[in-house]
Amino acid sequence: MSLEKEKQLVLELILHFYKQGWMRFGSGNFCLRNGNELLCAKDRVQRDLLQEGEIVQFSLSDSPKVDNVEWSKIFAYILQKRNAVSCILSTSIAALGASLYPAKEFHTRSKEMIKGIPKGHPSNGYLCCFDSLKVPIIQNDSTERIYESIKQTLEDYPETNAILIRGYGAIGWGSTWEKSKTQMECYDYLFELDYKIKNL
Amino acid sequence: MSLEKEKQLVLELILHFYKQGWMRFGSGNFCLRNGNELLCAKDRVQRDLLQEGEIVQFSLSDSPKVDNVEWSKIFAYILQKRNAVSCILSTSIAALGASLYPAKEFHTRSKEMIKGIPKGHPSNGYLCCFDSLKVPIIQNDSTERIYESIKQTLEDYPETNAILIRGYGAIGWGSTWEKSKTQMECYDYLFELDYKIKNL
Amino acid sequence: MSLEKEKQLVLELILHFYKQGWMRFGSGNFCLRNGNELLCAKDRVQRDLLQEGEIVQFSLSDSPKVDNVEWSKIFAYILQKRNAVSCILSTSIAALGASLYPAKEFHTRSKEMIKGIPKGHPSNGYLCCFDSLKVPIIQNDSTERIYESIKQTLEDYPETNAILIRGYGAIGWGSTWEKSKTQMECYDYLFELDYKIKNL
Amino acid sequence: MSLEKEKQLVLELILHFYKQGWMRFGSGNFCLRNGNELLCAKDRVQRDLLQEGEIVQFSLSDSPKVDNVEWSKIFAYILQKRNAVSCILSTSIAALGASLYPAKEFHTRSKEMIKGIPKGHPSNGYLCCFDSLKVPIIQNDSTERIYESIKQTLEDYPETNAILIRGYGAIGWGSTWEKSKTQMECYDYLFELDYKIKNL
Repeated sequence: MSLEKEKQLVLELILHFYKQGWMRFGSGNFCLRNGNELLCAKDRVQRDLLQEGEIVQFSLSDSPKVDNVEWSKIFAYILQKRNAVSCILSTSIAALGASLYPAKEFHTRSKEMIKGIPKGHPSNGYLCCFDSLKVPIIQNDSTERIYESIKQTLEDYPETNAILIRGYGAIGWGSTWEKSKTQMECYDYLFELDYKIKNL
Repeated sequence: MSLEKEKQLVLELILHFYKQGWMRFGSGNFCLRNGNELLCAKDRVQRDLLQEGEIVQFSLSDSPKVDNVEWSKIFAYILQKRNAVSCILSTSIAALGASLYPAKEFHTRSKEMIKGIPKGHPSNGYLCCFDSLKVPIIQNDSTERIYESIKQTLEDYPETNAILIRGYGAIGWGSTWEKSKTQMECYDYLFELDYKIKNL
Repeated sequence: MSLEKEKQLVLELILHFYKQGWMRFGSGNFCLRNGNELLCAKDRVQRDLLQEGEIVQFSLSDSPKVDNVEWSKIFAYILQKRNAVSCILSTSIAALGASLYPAKEFHTRSKEMIKGIPKGHPSNGYLCCFDSLKVPIIQNDSTERIYESIKQTLEDYPETNAILIRGYGAIGWGSTWEKSKTQMECYDYLFELDYKIKNL
Repeated sequence: MSLEKEKQLVLELILHFYKQGWMRFGSGNFCLRNGNELLCAKDRVQRDLLQEGEIVQFSLSDSPKVDNVEWSKIFAYILQKRNAVSCILSTSIAALGASLYPAKEFHTRSKEMIKGIPKGHPSNGYLCCFDSLKVPIIQNDSTERIYESIKQTLEDYPETNAILIRGYGAIGWGSTWEKSKTQMECYDYLFELDYKIKNL
């Protein structure tokens, strides 16, 4: 896809994610990679009224010094480290609820929707619905420290496709933009369902 | 209706069901029968962005060997056994909540919406709002075993129009596509309401 | 307004009410009066896909014998008795929750939204936000007995603009279609809010 | 922006806010300032069907005597006192829930979304996500007394950008219309999240 078309895709998907409740205010983001180039929305810009001029393009090597995108270095690191094409930073209420569990990981099992999550890279296949799904939870902190925590977490959890950040939300990634989207749909569903069950 | 028009209908209804929360990720399905031919969406394909090329057509006799539609044999069996025209596999949060009740059946009574559910085939009339509605719950398992459970359940509950699959969702069917849709609206509503009351 | 325009209005408003969650399946209704003529949707007809041909027109005197609209006699009675122009029968989850309270009335007070409810007819002015709002709850039963209960309740509660029917929903009316709509928005909001507070 | 364009903006934003659940019935409002001129919707007018003729224009000096806008004087006072351009009066269920807490203030901390709230005027910078956010709660009363309470509260809480009114909702303001909107998105999110956590 050309960069021009990808910009349109980023605009459309961010609006879609806003409607799903993943991106209120200028928080939450979607970062799409095309070779060495990355696209995402500026920080503190309205997700439901995003303009083309508010999409930032930067290269992998430039990622640490991008203005207006605090997480640029984190997005670049995850996408390279996991050989992924896009990642979604969601601040949905469901993700927040799960991020606040007083535990090191969010756990769920025996839910059909777990099948939507790959064992690390999709080339290793997918989890079975009876598998246990763990999503590591890290502390919120300065961007630099979140970067360090995520680096460590990617080592400690080689199979995870998402990380919860306490009081912040969830970051997930996928080997195509479709996979990052459907995987986040699964995670968000599982977070929401878990809350519902806890209240039965 | 021509198969071409039915394909359009499947596309439209699946998008509608996605918006209702019945089909996140590539899960959930809608299967429509036209004589010996069946139409439904491929597995693991985005329900909100479904393309015409992602709708699979197969015949009743081919149903056990359809690629990309794990439930093809189950859809075909239910539609034939119950003389139905379409069925909906929903993974809504409301259905999931109900499927996780530690019981063999979901029970509810004295709700007006129960009137929307037929006593088996609509030719036998509909339940009264004061009737007790039971929806059997089966275990989730391999597709082959779910097939066997559903076969048994259709024998054990000759009047039911839906089955809950624990941790998975609900499958419902109707003698027209409209009935399968409105009946699932009733079931989903009753599942949601029951959860709400339990939390009062 | 001409009857033709009113039919369009009924079509549009019922779709709007469906989206609000007031009318799932073929349940819930909106009845609009134009002199001696009344318009509403047929029973058991999909509210989200309502067709012009599925709107029934009948006169006040014909109301007891209308096919396909079980509540025709009730709608006609309420509209005449309360000098109202339209009524809404809602089966929203919020109304259902409130209808199931083990009490003769739903009570709430000190909510700003109470200001949206008139003291009986709007010509008597509106409730103050500090007033206590009572909505009587009647039992669900055969249409004939609901008719009798509603008749009695209109006598017992001369100021009410809505009645809850246990396990069924809520019927509300207004002196214009706009008022019946905004009043039901207030009731639904107050039912939803009350549930929320009970869970705090 | 011309006043004509601003009227269009008010119409569009109020519809958007209705869809967010901030303005049911004729309650809730959005007031936009252009120099000495203010625009907002009339009281008791349907927010989802707002017409251009239902937008009221008045000047700062006229604010105490505007018909059909009970809060005109309050809007004018806040906008001047805080050097703001627009304010949003929300009656969302989330705001109502928070307004009913038996405390003088709504408190939350360690949530990323807190970053969206300025320390008083945005020229002083924004809160950090680890800061504690307080939103004062005042009693609902006559408009005149709410006016007095808000006056006092603006003195007592020089940094706040919103006030909760018990049983009524929340009023928030911003130095641009975009900021008043995104800030209310943050507040509403934090109110909703807090309720969710309380129920865990």
